[in-house]
Amino acid sequence: MPELRKDPITGRWVIIATERRKRPNDFRLETPALNGARFCPFCEGHEAHTPREVLSYRHAGGPNGPGWDVRVVPNKFPALQVEGDLDRQGEGLFDKMSGIGAHEVIIETPEHDASLAELPVAAIERILWAFRERVLDLRQDQRFRYILIFKNHGAAAGASLQHSHSQLIALPIVPMQVKEEVEGARHHFAMKERCVYCDVIRQETEGRSRVISENADFVALAPYAPRFPFETWILPRRHGSNFEEAPRPEYDGLARMLKEVLNRMNRALLSPPFNLVLHSAPFQEDALRRVYHWHVEIMPKLTKVAGFEWGSGFYINPTSPEEAAQVLRDAPV
Amino acid sequence: MPELRKDPITGRWVIIATERRKRPNDFRLETPALNGARFCPFCEGHEAHTPREVLSYRHAGGPNGPGWDVRVVPNKFPALQVEGDLDRQGEGLFDKMSGIGAHEVIIETPEHDASLAELPVAAIERILWAFRERVLDLRQDQRFRYILIFKNHGAAAGASLQHSHSQLIALPIVPMQVKEEVEGARHHFAMKERCVYCDVIRQETEGRSRVISENADFVALAPYAPRFPFETWILPRRHGSNFEEAPRPEYDGLARMLKEVLNRMNRALLSPPFNLVLHSAPFQEDALRRVYHWHVEIMPKLTKVAGFEWGSGFYINPTSPEEAAQVLRDAPV
Repeated sequence: MPELRKDPITGRWVIIATERRKRPNDFRLETPALNGARFCPFCEGHEAHTPREVLSYRHAGGPNGPGWDVRVVPNKFPALQVEGDLDRQGEGLFDKMSGIGAHEVIIETPEHDASLAELPVAAIERILWAFRERVLDLRQDQRFRYILIFKNHGAAAGASLQHSHSQLIALPIVPMQVKEEVEGARHHFAMKERCVYCDVIRQETEGRSRVISENADFVALAPYAPRFPFETWILPRRHGSNFEEAPRPEYDGLARMLKEVLNRMNRALLSPPFNLVLHSAPFQEDALRRVYHWHVEIMPKLTKVAGFEWGSGFYINPTSPEEAAQVLRDAPV
Repeated sequence: MPELRKDPITGRWVIIATERRKRPNDFRLETPALNGARFCPFCEGHEAHTPREVLSYRHAGGPNGPGWDVRVVPNKFPALQVEGDLDRQGEGLFDKMSGIGAHEVIIETPEHDASLAELPVAAIERILWAFRERVLDLRQDQRFRYILIFKNHGAAAGASLQHSHSQLIALPIVPMQVKEEVEGARHHFAMKERCVYCDVIRQETEGRSRVISENADFVALAPYAPRFPFETWILPRRHGSNFEEAPRPEYDGLARMLKEVLNRMNRALLSPPFNLVLHSAPFQEDALRRVYHWHVEIMPKLTKVAGFEWGSGFYINPTSPEEAAQVLRDAPV
């Protein structure tokens, strides 16, 4: 059974996923080759090769057969285990709990070669709607405090299968970076009685030098202090703490903006690998409703980020966000 | 001139190193080929191809000529600029300051092919002594609050030159991760009036399951909640907040332990690429003397850490520290 362990100094929780354990000799660094030509368990007609689906949107057929547009299945190699109690224990100084959680895969399209950016807006909206439905379902489980939704696109960004998909991990803890954002937003709210993200949106849409694109409901911008070149945030204009509670039209607006931003990146940066993460407020914290502001972060993987950043949390970014925003604004779409 | 910018939400400072700016097309991801066969500016006899040295330990010759054992030079492509004032400015919500700092390279050996683990203990001690001398010199500069010393070994860990070297960056801010450790240690001290690292050392050397090795002055261990497989910390047994203030014999003890741990990794993990970071207390904070405990962190680069970890600060580690410690303990040295 996997374990969640807390660092006694920083308070950061990590998963020790013993089920995924490898022997030392398995650890040689290799760039994973994507399964271009090999058998793909995510393709239509191969439904029997994944765990049984927990959700699908279909134009034909029944569960676990062909005819779907979006399909959500448990991860075959989950980092956490869904059955069991949240057994919290101390070990002297240390804290741990059983590795309870859900780990699901959102298969974004039945087509093997279609990338998210190429899908029609309506198809992207359907994927976002599937995220929403899964979060609304899983957040009823009182053991969970956070659901992390993310996408690794391309081998260099950590994807192990080429077929376009996202992942969802439901956790009994709040990830460090979300915690940092929540604390920062709380601090700002305590001082100003305003949401810091709303303030950022206001200032950025006035100044415009870091704005990449805007539509009725969303703003895409290069953040003021980005860790990575061409890091991009997509924020809803309307204040809201939780992605899954956004009003229906916003999913269409986000789908449009996501497609546009990814296409701008593809044109300007020659279809880069990227990581995408959805940040939303932790559950069971009503005090955060006015404080936190959900958003999407996209980090194209362009530089060899590897070195000391991990050991220091200190980032050197060779591209200013003003330049990045301009390059993406100028890209033809 | 590079700029330091602060994220308005999390308070994280980043360097926007515009001097190092690249055009978008320069950003295609490539695994840097190390300069195996090419001309190496760090080799003995090539001293004219680096900026003029700021320190050298020599058995012969004078500055900027052959005859040295360790040589410290300014980085030819510095992330920060050493001349100028710390000009702090606001931009509405945002905070920035001029990118003032020092960026130096410690060339660890005149021999092109010698790795740190292969050097004699006395040579490693000399390198640590050079770190110490540079920190003692640079900390007199009132503009600096932190000096980050780190080493990237191997292309996959971000090294761009093969010739064994470390780097030093003097900063007017405290890096996020050090800040997190300092805050955690402060919190523990406020509760218990004890150093959290001293508590960890006591518990770990009693329990032993995560201890990799011990000598008179140092303990090497796999931390309880490691982010990466085989992550290793080397801690001085004697409490001390600052590396550069350690008593002389500890540099010998650290050199021995560093050599041993790197050799154990080389045997057990087939000479992995790694990142090494020295964590020491920020300057100008006397209150931290009893609270913080300097140490070395080594992270072999074994897994494709890439995916969502950056966007979430949440790590999944497939190897338990108990297993890692045992594998390293059992490695023949």
